[in-house]
Amino acid sequence: MPLSLLEKSVNKKVSLLLKDNRVLEGTLIGYDDYLNMVIENTEETNGDQVKRLGTVILRGNNVVSITPQS
Amino acid sequence: MPLSLLEKSVNKKVSLLLKDNRVLEGTLIGYDDYLNMVIENTEETNGDQVKRLGTVILRGNNVVSITPQS
Amino acid sequence: MPLSLLEKSVNKKVSLLLKDNRVLEGTLIGYDDYLNMVIENTEETNGDQVKRLGTVILRGNNVVSITPQS
Amino acid sequence: MPLSLLEKSVNKKVSLLLKDNRVLEGTLIGYDDYLNMVIENTEETNGDQVKRLGTVILRGNNVVSITPQS
Amino acid sequence: MPLSLLEKSVNKKVSLLLKDNRVLEGTLIGYDDYLNMVIENTEETNGDQVKRLGTVILRGNNVVSITPQS
Amino acid sequence: MPLSLLEKSVNKKVSLLLKDNRVLEGTLIGYDDYLNMVIENTEETNGDQVKRLGTVILRGNNVVSITPQS
Amino acid sequence: MPLSLLEKSVNKKVSLLLKDNRVLEGTLIGYDDYLNMVIENTEETNGDQVKRLGTVILRGNNVVSITPQS
Repeated sequence: MPLSLLEKSVNKKVSLLLKDNRVLEGTLIGYDDYLNMVIENTEETNGDQVKRLGTVILRGNNVVSITPQS
Repeated sequence: MPLSLLEKSVNKKVSLLLKDNRVLEGTLIGYDDYLNMVIENTEETNGDQVKRLGTVILRGNNVVSITPQS
Repeated sequence: MPLSLLEKSVNKKVSLLLKDNRVLEGTLIGYDDYLNMVIENTEETNGDQVKRLGTVILRGNNVVSITPQS
Repeated sequence: MPLSLLEKSVNKKVSLLLKDNRVLEGTLIGYDDYLNMVIENTEETNGDQVKRLGTVILRGNNVVSITPQS
Repeated sequence: MPLSLLEKSVNKKVSLLLKDNRVLEGTLIGYDDYLNMVIENTEETNGDQVKRLGTVILRGNNVVSITPQS
Repeated sequence: MPLSLLEKSVNKKVSLLLKDNRVLEGTLIGYDDYLNMVIENTEETNGDQVKRLGTVILRGNNVVSITPQS
Repeated sequence: MPLSLLEKSVNKKVSLLLKDNRVLEGTLIGYDDYLNMVIENTEETNGDQVKRLGTVILRGNNVVSITPQS
C-alpha cells in the first residue's frame, strides 16, 4: 500500500526528508522495492538556501519520509 | 500480532515516534510488512510548533513506536 | 528460548529498555519473531516523570532488553 | 563454535558487554541463533553502582561480547 | 528504474554524495545491485580542496545519492 | 579467502580492533560465518591499561579487523 | 563489475578508506562477496603517523572505498 501511493506519485512532485535532515523536492520518475528513487529537477532546501541538483538517484535507506505534493 | 493491531488501526488516528525524535500524528491509511506506512493529514509536533505535512509515506525503519489514538 | 520466555510473559507486566534510553512499562499483549511488540497501559519513565502512552506498537529493533515483572 | 561455547555456558554465570557500554552479569538460561539471550539474576554494573534487574530477555544485536565466568 | 538510469550513466560523469558528507566526481565504469560502484578519474571535493583519487571501488551502503552530470 | 586465513589462525594469537575502538588480544579458538569468534586469554588494551578478560565470545558485527600475530 | 575490478587488484597494492576515517594501504591477497578482505604488509596512515599492521583481515562493512594503486 505504501508502494501503491508511490506508484500514483510517479511524474508528480514529491518532497523528501532524508536521514541527514536534508529536504529534497522534485519530480518522482521511478522507484524500486528498496525505495531507491529517481528524482528530476531536484532542489535541495537548507534553511533559506536552494540548491538545484537536477536528476538524482537516491538510495532508499537514506529516506525518512516522502510527501506527495498536491 | 503487532501487525494485526496495525490492521485494526487503519483509517484511525495514530501517533508515531520516529528515531530522530520527531512525533507525527495522522490517519493511518496503509502499511506493509516492513512497517512502511501511509499517513494522511499528518501533523508534526515539535515542542509547541505544529507543522502540517498532509499525506506522508514513512519508511518503516525510522519508526520507534506507533500509538493508536482512542 | 528467549521467545518462549516472551510467550510466558503475554498478558503480564514487562519493563522495556529502548536504544534511546527510554524505559517503558506495560502489559505485553503480543509479539512477533522480530520482537515487534504490542504493549498496553504503557507508561514511559524518564527520571521522575511518568507519561501514559496507552497502547503502543513497538518496533523490535529499538529494543535493548525486556524484563518480565514478577 | 561460538554458539557451542554458549551452549556450555547455559546455567552458568556470564558477563555481558552491551553496545551502550553497560555491563550485565547473571546466569545464562537460554539463547537463540541471533544471540538473543535470557539472563537470570541479572545485575547491571555501572562504575560503583549495582542495579538488580532479575530476569532479562536481551536482544542479540545489542551485545558486543559475552564472557563466561569461571 | 533507478538502476536503469544508472545503466544509462555508465561511461558518463556522475557526482556522488556519501554518508560522511564527502562529494566524489568521476566517470561511472560499473555498478552492481547493491549500488557498489567503480568510478574512474575520481575527484573528491571538500570545500575548496580537490583531491585526485583515480579509480575507486565504492561500497554502495555509503552512498546517499548519485547525480548524473549532463 | 578471508575465512581461510581465519581458519589458519585457529589456536594462534590474534589482535582484534572493535568498532568501539577497543583492542583485544588473545588466542583464536573458533569462529563462524558471521565472524563471531571465541577468544581465550583475552587481554584488552586501552592506552597503557591492560585488562584480562579470559575467554570471550565476540559478536562479529562489532569487529573492524583481525590481525594474526606472527 | 565492482568485484571484477577487485579481482584484478589481487596481489596488487590498494588503499582503503574505512568508516572510522582510518586509511590502510597494503597488498590485497583475497576478498569475498561481502567485501571482507585480506591485506598484507598493511600500513595505517593517520596524518603523519604510519603504523605497520602486517596481515589484516578486514570486515567488509567497515569499508567505504577501495583504490587500486597504479
